[in-house]
Amino acid sequence: MNKIKAAVVGYGNIGRFVVEALEAAPDFEVAGVVRRSVSEKPAELAAYPVVTDITELGKVDVAILCTPTREVEKNAVKYLAMGINTVDSFDIHSKIVELRSSLDKVARENGTVAVISAGWDPGSDSVVRALLQAAAPKGLTYTNFGPGMSMGHTVCVKSKPGVKNALSMTIPLGTGIHRRMVYVELEDGAKLEEVAAAVKADPYFASDETHVMAVESVDAVKDMGHGVNMTRKGVSGKTQNQLFEFDMKINNPALTAQILVDVARASMKQAPGAYTMIEIPVIDLLPGDRDELIRALV
Amino acid sequence: MNKIKAAVVGYGNIGRFVVEALEAAPDFEVAGVVRRSVSEKPAELAAYPVVTDITELGKVDVAILCTPTREVEKNAVKYLAMGINTVDSFDIHSKIVELRSSLDKVARENGTVAVISAGWDPGSDSVVRALLQAAAPKGLTYTNFGPGMSMGHTVCVKSKPGVKNALSMTIPLGTGIHRRMVYVELEDGAKLEEVAAAVKADPYFASDETHVMAVESVDAVKDMGHGVNMTRKGVSGKTQNQLFEFDMKINNPALTAQILVDVARASMKQAPGAYTMIEIPVIDLLPGDRDELIRALV
Repeated sequence: MNKIKAAVVGYGNIGRFVVEALEAAPDFEVAGVVRRSVSEKPAELAAYPVVTDITELGKVDVAILCTPTREVEKNAVKYLAMGINTVDSFDIHSKIVELRSSLDKVARENGTVAVISAGWDPGSDSVVRALLQAAAPKGLTYTNFGPGMSMGHTVCVKSKPGVKNALSMTIPLGTGIHRRMVYVELEDGAKLEEVAAAVKADPYFASDETHVMAVESVDAVKDMGHGVNMTRKGVSGKTQNQLFEFDMKINNPALTAQILVDVARASMKQAPGAYTMIEIPVIDLLPGDRDELIRALV
Repeated sequence: MNKIKAAVVGYGNIGRFVVEALEAAPDFEVAGVVRRSVSEKPAELAAYPVVTDITELGKVDVAILCTPTREVEKNAVKYLAMGINTVDSFDIHSKIVELRSSLDKVARENGTVAVISAGWDPGSDSVVRALLQAAAPKGLTYTNFGPGMSMGHTVCVKSKPGVKNALSMTIPLGTGIHRRMVYVELEDGAKLEEVAAAVKADPYFASDETHVMAVESVDAVKDMGHGVNMTRKGVSGKTQNQLFEFDMKINNPALTAQILVDVARASMKQAPGAYTMIEIPVIDLLPGDRDELIRALV
């Protein structure tokens, strides 16, 4: 079997888990890791080339972008134009259509494929949301996140004066309403009340119930588990009260990384262009023979 | 907008709900209903032609097959060859690959599309099963059915001597294990112990915990609600203990009918051939503008 050659671009939290998911996949080969600096090579990458420029890796089929969201477009455009498929977990919901349109053009011109916003939300949750919308076209879907760490909110708290380290936990209260539990390590002389006031005034937190607490060590209270509970109550045809619920409790970067590897596989089977996950048949996320997958899963 | 012209073939439980779902859909037009006999026209079909031969309906884009599962292939082959797409809820899991292969050939030869085994299981459950397999490639998925009426088991009980009417309920015990609660209306002189023994000896029931009870009226204890609880515990990459759960409580024929209408819509967007639901992008199940759907759901 010809394995799919994947480059991992960026080596933070997600990048580490993507390397593991590639190693666990039967149909992938790690072509190498692309980083800004190659001065220190982590022990677990000993077997792989670590480079600053993807062209040093030879033939690459797909680049798995594990850089911050705001660097996705620039990198994707570059790689797509080089004949390399890209996948990303771009997560600014309001800009997904725009990114898709921009990458679609480059991908079509270069005969490549981009799969965007592929993680768990946006990502696998989006597939469930679309499926439930189809199952009961009229009605309400609520996506409840947590309990789990919100990256965006945590970064926001860290930016406040007097905060040495922070953790913002998202607590689901149902019907899409969330509580924010914020744990801060204060700098010497900083006052909790002032930090709390600054956090609660920030647009990130202003509309949610927010509690700010000082802790000795943020590291001691942090874990990477997360959760989702999605409900839909709606109407199939003219029949009311159809009830659906999807629930998961997961290691956040591990699931994001697994989905990125799945869509990297799927990218090899799509016509040139850019896709979100709801535009890709789920069977394409899986390795193996089509008839056997249908026999096992349908 | 050019509406999709759909013919409903067969007018039992599912057929009735399909007409309702078509009436509720913004992009469909009921071309008519095809039945074995047109002698009695139900009041709710007053506005539609009811015929014995689909050619009497003029142009039809897609035929929604609501006949018993064993008549699906014969009807689908006929309509696909006439240039009409077909969708069905064929539910014999072990024969789905075979049906797909047979219809795929006819569909490709005639430039038509068949979507097979589209209901809730097989159907929307299959999409969730495939997605969870992708999210955690190693692990176990359990699909638990009920509480709800099993059509197949009910028909089996009705065939036993001494049984006037019957209802077999499926009760989920977890990890894919089910209890069968069987309610029978006995014929005069029939003995409950003998009926119970015959039911429990039947291959349909032999491997499940089964309880058989006599009731005055089966009709008085029957409803069309059903449920599914699907769980997966598995490994994303190399990370253990990823937990997923999908749960629904639904009117059974109403959901089946809605999904049939959704795949009828999707059939208009696929290349010629036969597909199961896991081979179709979920976005194609939904009406409306692609960018707007992505904005709302991804």
